[in-house]
Amino acid sequence: MQKKYVYTFGGGAAEGTANDKNLLGGKGANLAEMCSLGIPVPAGFTISTECCTDYYASGCKLPAALAGQVLAALRKTESVIGMKYGDAANPLLASCRSGARLSMPGMMDTVLNVGLCTATIPGMIAKTVNPRFVWDSYRRLIMMYADVVMEKAEGLEPALGKGIRKILDEKLDEMKRAKGCKSDTDLDADDLQQLAEGFKELIRRHLGKPFPDDPIEQLWGAISAVFKSWNGKKAVSYRRIEGIPDDWGTAVNIQAMVFGNMGESSATGVAFTRDPATGENRFYGEWLMNAQGEDVVAGIRTPAPINDDTRNEQNRHLVSMEHAMPEIYRELDAIRSTLERRFTDMMDIEFTIQEGKLWMLQCRSGKRTGVAALNIAIDMLDEGLIDETTAIMRVKPRQLDEVLHPIIDPNVEKDAVPIVKGLPAGPGAACGALVFNSEDAVASSRAGRNCILLREETNPEDIEGMRAAVGILTARGGMTSHAALVARGWGKCCIVGAGSLHVDSENKTAEIADSGTVLKEGDIVTLNGTKGRVFVGSLPMIDASENPRFQRFMTMSDKYRTMGVRTNADTAQDARVARNFGAEGIGLFRTEHMFYGEGSDEPLFCLRKMILSKTAEERKAALDELFPFIKSSLKGTMEAMEGFPVTIRLLDPPLHEFVPQGAEKQAELARALGIEVEEIQKRGEILHESNPMMGHRGIRLGITYPEVSEMQIRAIFECAAELIKAGKRCTPEIMVPVTCDVSELEFTRKIVERVHTEVLNRFGLAGLAGLEYKYGTMIEIPRAALLADRMAESSMFFSFGTNDLTQLTYGFSRDDIGGFMNDYLDLKLLPSDPFQTIDQDGVGQLITMAVKKGRATRPELKVGICGEQGGDPASVDFCYKNGLTYVSCSPFRVPIARLAAAQAAIKAAMEN
Amino acid sequence: MQKKYVYTFGGGAAEGTANDKNLLGGKGANLAEMCSLGIPVPAGFTISTECCTDYYASGCKLPAALAGQVLAALRKTESVIGMKYGDAANPLLASCRSGARLSMPGMMDTVLNVGLCTATIPGMIAKTVNPRFVWDSYRRLIMMYADVVMEKAEGLEPALGKGIRKILDEKLDEMKRAKGCKSDTDLDADDLQQLAEGFKELIRRHLGKPFPDDPIEQLWGAISAVFKSWNGKKAVSYRRIEGIPDDWGTAVNIQAMVFGNMGESSATGVAFTRDPATGENRFYGEWLMNAQGEDVVAGIRTPAPINDDTRNEQNRHLVSMEHAMPEIYRELDAIRSTLERRFTDMMDIEFTIQEGKLWMLQCRSGKRTGVAALNIAIDMLDEGLIDETTAIMRVKPRQLDEVLHPIIDPNVEKDAVPIVKGLPAGPGAACGALVFNSEDAVASSRAGRNCILLREETNPEDIEGMRAAVGILTARGGMTSHAALVARGWGKCCIVGAGSLHVDSENKTAEIADSGTVLKEGDIVTLNGTKGRVFVGSLPMIDASENPRFQRFMTMSDKYRTMGVRTNADTAQDARVARNFGAEGIGLFRTEHMFYGEGSDEPLFCLRKMILSKTAEERKAALDELFPFIKSSLKGTMEAMEGFPVTIRLLDPPLHEFVPQGAEKQAELARALGIEVEEIQKRGEILHESNPMMGHRGIRLGITYPEVSEMQIRAIFECAAELIKAGKRCTPEIMVPVTCDVSELEFTRKIVERVHTEVLNRFGLAGLAGLEYKYGTMIEIPRAALLADRMAESSMFFSFGTNDLTQLTYGFSRDDIGGFMNDYLDLKLLPSDPFQTIDQDGVGQLITMAVKKGRATRPELKVGICGEQGGDPASVDFCYKNGLTYVSCSPFRVPIARLAAAQAAIKAAMEN
Repeated sequence: MQKKYVYTFGGGAAEGTANDKNLLGGKGANLAEMCSLGIPVPAGFTISTECCTDYYASGCKLPAALAGQVLAALRKTESVIGMKYGDAANPLLASCRSGARLSMPGMMDTVLNVGLCTATIPGMIAKTVNPRFVWDSYRRLIMMYADVVMEKAEGLEPALGKGIRKILDEKLDEMKRAKGCKSDTDLDADDLQQLAEGFKELIRRHLGKPFPDDPIEQLWGAISAVFKSWNGKKAVSYRRIEGIPDDWGTAVNIQAMVFGNMGESSATGVAFTRDPATGENRFYGEWLMNAQGEDVVAGIRTPAPINDDTRNEQNRHLVSMEHAMPEIYRELDAIRSTLERRFTDMMDIEFTIQEGKLWMLQCRSGKRTGVAALNIAIDMLDEGLIDETTAIMRVKPRQLDEVLHPIIDPNVEKDAVPIVKGLPAGPGAACGALVFNSEDAVASSRAGRNCILLREETNPEDIEGMRAAVGILTARGGMTSHAALVARGWGKCCIVGAGSLHVDSENKTAEIADSGTVLKEGDIVTLNGTKGRVFVGSLPMIDASENPRFQRFMTMSDKYRTMGVRTNADTAQDARVARNFGAEGIGLFRTEHMFYGEGSDEPLFCLRKMILSKTAEERKAALDELFPFIKSSLKGTMEAMEGFPVTIRLLDPPLHEFVPQGAEKQAELARALGIEVEEIQKRGEILHESNPMMGHRGIRLGITYPEVSEMQIRAIFECAAELIKAGKRCTPEIMVPVTCDVSELEFTRKIVERVHTEVLNRFGLAGLAGLEYKYGTMIEIPRAALLADRMAESSMFFSFGTNDLTQLTYGFSRDDIGGFMNDYLDLKLLPSDPFQTIDQDGVGQLITMAVKKGRATRPELKVGICGEQGGDPASVDFCYKNGLTYVSCSPFRVPIARLAAAQAAIKAAMEN
Repeated sequence: MQKKYVYTFGGGAAEGTANDKNLLGGKGANLAEMCSLGIPVPAGFTISTECCTDYYASGCKLPAALAGQVLAALRKTESVIGMKYGDAANPLLASCRSGARLSMPGMMDTVLNVGLCTATIPGMIAKTVNPRFVWDSYRRLIMMYADVVMEKAEGLEPALGKGIRKILDEKLDEMKRAKGCKSDTDLDADDLQQLAEGFKELIRRHLGKPFPDDPIEQLWGAISAVFKSWNGKKAVSYRRIEGIPDDWGTAVNIQAMVFGNMGESSATGVAFTRDPATGENRFYGEWLMNAQGEDVVAGIRTPAPINDDTRNEQNRHLVSMEHAMPEIYRELDAIRSTLERRFTDMMDIEFTIQEGKLWMLQCRSGKRTGVAALNIAIDMLDEGLIDETTAIMRVKPRQLDEVLHPIIDPNVEKDAVPIVKGLPAGPGAACGALVFNSEDAVASSRAGRNCILLREETNPEDIEGMRAAVGILTARGGMTSHAALVARGWGKCCIVGAGSLHVDSENKTAEIADSGTVLKEGDIVTLNGTKGRVFVGSLPMIDASENPRFQRFMTMSDKYRTMGVRTNADTAQDARVARNFGAEGIGLFRTEHMFYGEGSDEPLFCLRKMILSKTAEERKAALDELFPFIKSSLKGTMEAMEGFPVTIRLLDPPLHEFVPQGAEKQAELARALGIEVEEIQKRGEILHESNPMMGHRGIRLGITYPEVSEMQIRAIFECAAELIKAGKRCTPEIMVPVTCDVSELEFTRKIVERVHTEVLNRFGLAGLAGLEYKYGTMIEIPRAALLADRMAESSMFFSFGTNDLTQLTYGFSRDDIGGFMNDYLDLKLLPSDPFQTIDQDGVGQLITMAVKKGRATRPELKVGICGEQGGDPASVDFCYKNGLTYVSCSPFRVPIARLAAAQAAIKAAMEN
């Protein structure tokens, strides 16, 4: 029996359903489904993805069986629609569109108005009584066809080095100049006819063959071109990035053309079955009378609201479809209900009204904001349309960012033009007056004025100002720059690397390179930190963070989650925020955080004394001074996280980071220490390193200065002992950073065990409750991962430091990737920035290996992750698959990680 | 049947042979063998290593069967020697020494004079008529026994925190002070008797038990102590580093004491069966009349030569044994021949003459210089003592360093005191006048004066001076510092990191911290670059490099070698040197080498213009200027290596390395470019990186500036084309550095293929001979190793860059390990510096994985190594085991690698 390649739809019946996406593609399956639901869809047929696969398998030949099936389906379409393809009197025109299983927007080709030719043009003119419309459609067909079918699909080198499309565009411009027209629409029917003839001449000359005048030849050309576009460069790259298999293939949808531009009883529009910005259960859409679909998108005319619900500032004066065509509106509204019931999702639909008759052209799941996603999921659950796991899967973890932060009203933002763009480093929106330094930010905040701190880039001395500002904007730096790390940790709106800004801090101005606009102190700007866009002026905000449905949604997600979620927190404040967001402990407390300029300067001063010590005795004395600060910083955080485990990482960064750099600070320290400034500079120089990331830091400091480790360990145990004596539950986890060999862990463990015994005895806990703790290591050096079996001999837990592990596995210094990362991403040499999402191929191999080897040595080994990627959904999924005990991320990412972990568990359950 | 633990020897018979090292330890087996050969050995017995293993297996209990066997053996010893252990009239004293399979020098304990006690002292005095000798022996026994047996072996905390040995030493000092004596030898018999009593009192007080006065109790204490010392801290660490299994255990050798200090007819000495410095076949040794073994070693008295052959400056006035005791000398000389025939090796022997009777105390394979090793191997092969493979295995690859470089006459050096020590960075010796800067070095060299360049540390601007000097000495830097890398590449004598030198370049002086000595310009010094020792004055040298036997030895080795050996060479000169040393191609030609200051400044100047280009056009123009320099540098080297493959690595280092730093150079460049100095500084700042090792370098430059890769690739192909047209054979191998993903290789391969075609056509080679080349990648980023299967899709060869691979796998910046590497090595946290020898556990795992994965994709994949470790014998062995196609190293290391590769193959054949 012949293989079935062609599936028809139309006239209330179809040879497929919405479940046939693999065979018919997303578009084809939904068109079939709509037909079966009795929704008016221009009749047509879908050539299956299987046909595409066979086409490639046989070396780009259409299967022999296809011709007959296509012609039969065409006949069926003609009979449903009552027109005839290629007919001189009553010609049917067709659209020819791609449609893969998953949407690949803009990646493949489309040809419209197929079937217009010398033979059918007169009939069309007679039928439409609109010669200009017909000639315009014809010249559009020629342009599209020449480009897509005759040049690209044939694999020709671009004609004249620029391509036929450009050549024809130039011809069009020439005609407009000759006629003194500004716009295409100013050309009349004769102009357009003349243009079409000119086009055909140019095609013959540059492509070496004539534009086909036979409707059937046009049809086959278009079908082949769509198949070929599956293996076009853009599509192949897109598939590689999205992980779409090459052998899925695309379907081809051939459908009767309908026109919304055939007069006042014609129209076209797009709509969402619920509000995509808020999720409200109201019909939301826009339409244009006497227009084609592309006019709605192109923005030349302001589209009108379909109903009163959709009115806004821009369109309130325009007539709604509800008023203009009440009957058709009611029909559309009924279709809306039908679709939601059938697809149990908020749908994005396209429709055309041709001379009073409504046609549905497309329906697919609608894109929505985070707030809308949450509301729609909860509403549909309550409406009984979907179950709990479906509701949970309906919200993308990243969308929670929007739920948790104020955002710019999306209806306003879509029409606003950003003055500058940068990297989205901290989520949400912020609006305030520009300030150019930390002091001004603090002053502004004290005066009760919201401000945005604008800096070339930030450094630890800007911390106070960053805290004081409502938003942060920098001209330099990447997603892991100082500003980005700090802002993300705080959940503060932040945009970094806005490269076209030239900041002049001294004069408190910033020039925008492209436009020459100069921003001054006090200028009001609004940041969209989720998208990296900067606007002039104050844009209205939506504050979604108080949504009680968020709590309900998270509680529901947790029912399905099996992997723990902890937070990276260095202060009691952060610990409390994270705990409110559902963190189940601290995965990373960075001892050094207290030295980065928040609160008192004294600890940093003590640390500097320690660093500048010349003898072990001086160092010991400085450590004794430092001890109470470390202890109090720790104790507050441990108390805030009471009952949950707290992982404390021993001192990590290279010491030279803390050597004072400015002349003034050096002088101050020299005075206080009673030594020469030169001595301080000299010591700083000695500490200088060529590659500090790979230098004398982490446990390497603890090996050369064991007294530094000991002081920290003692502080940890004393805090725990004091809390236990006060009746609190507390389990510190001591984590050793930058390890590359088990010998480092053994060396340090001896100190831990000794100090533990000393503290137990001193606090009289030895015979009583005791003082439980865990001892473990970061896995952030490739060698530690490679030798994880040995590392586990001396570790009760591992925590993957995926920032450093990624740096070393790639040999990418995070601080220095600015020079090439964009080229790598632009050229698609890397699918994504590995500091955002775990590189599963490379870094992931080390993680998988380390988990396996570690648990082979110690089956009960706890394994977590505390790098930046701990809050990245794809990375959370990867962690789940690798059996990690928990992920740890910044406080504001905790809900994201919780949801991602729940979804990972649900997906795994569905797959099993 | 009872297990046999005790093996006797003496009186010309023994219960073991030299082959029983596993059971009897090295010392015991050779003592037994000597006995069987009829050589006079003080009788005794060996307690087997098996007994040690059983001792530990049963929780540190001596096996029940041992007591009877030891007593029986003791009886046998007494009967052979004609004395009786513990006897009042004719007492036998015993030595009790450890002896493992492999020598572990100084790691385990020894007790001498066992058996001296109240009961035996009078008999000994009567026998020796030398009360002072007896009482001195007694107090020595007490000191040694209290320390080794009573305190350490019992695991006691050191008495008074300092240990009993120290307490007794203080008592001895006190006695000397009281008696007004300078030396121990000034104390008389009464003093020593009184001291012994005082010792016993102190032992009772501080160790809580008396010094045993029963000879049998002493004997068992000594035996247990030796067994316990197998698990002493020093011994355990040593085994871990040397890879000696813990369960081998040590044997215990109990032997009758003989004394060389019983008058003029007594003596003691050490000798080598051939000259250990030159390998000459002459008997070589030293002796001391009326002395104990430790006196020869301690250097208080100058030992006399055993014969005229051994005379030198220091001992020419002393009477030789050959003259003083001609008969005994002849006996010893006969033993020498017997031993060489039996052991077929140059032996190191210890002997004692007690009252005219010769006793052999020890014989073992003798340590020797590289020159001696080579000569002895060849001589013994010619003498028919050994076969070819044995001869090859007899020379340690590292010893070839000495063969290839002049060395300080070892007979002189052993008595010379270095004024300062550093790291042995470049092999051989050098002697010359100190200069303090590059210009002076060049001037000195032009004037025909040998000079040593002394610098704080070197940088590329010192190259000319380094080339001009005969040796290089730096106060800072490690084994991979600039000076070390350059010197090793040239095979030039070099010492780096001589930390106690404080260099004042301005005043051209250097102070030695420890001694206060000040070195001035013009002072003559001699460096031993193989050992890192600096001597004042001119020491005599041996020039061994012209040894024709070296050629013969290498040719012989090559017969067994299967793995290729290439060289890292950047100049025609280096290529020629390496080719003379047997290199079979170039494994690493570094394009950037030409910019490091040798020869003309022009290429560097062009490169700087390229770096400072603002537009692609400017860059293109600068590249065009650079092109002829690159090409000519390449062509010379390719020509010198004609017929062998030449691997050319594309530009590797970060560009900012080449930005001029000094104000003067910046100004010069600014003038030449017609731009402001500020612009140059600004551009330099933009290029500055936090961690340049992991920054914008290698292929990352080729991704952002593909025109830079293209220029180099074109230069390579044009050189090859010109050589081929001139009738030469030439196969360039284009190597891409710093890759982390196959996409980088695919991107670059497109350029390679295009340029290849262009050059083929331009030179008219397309239809003719063609132009063969290989395209491949460095594997130096961990991710490239992890994804080697994919890398091999686009590579015909891999070359492991183990320098960078080690840096990234450990997270160790080579430039910054100075701050902690010594602590890691001192604390034995790492067994060795991984930049010297491949870390087989970690880095090696990646190498093994990459070879396996790469060859799974491409079975014919060529795999080499071009890191520093390519010339390290242990690393060469590892490469052989991993099936590498070749190793590549600096020219002077080529013979070392050849020998190491031959030995690896021989070892593998022996194991199979």
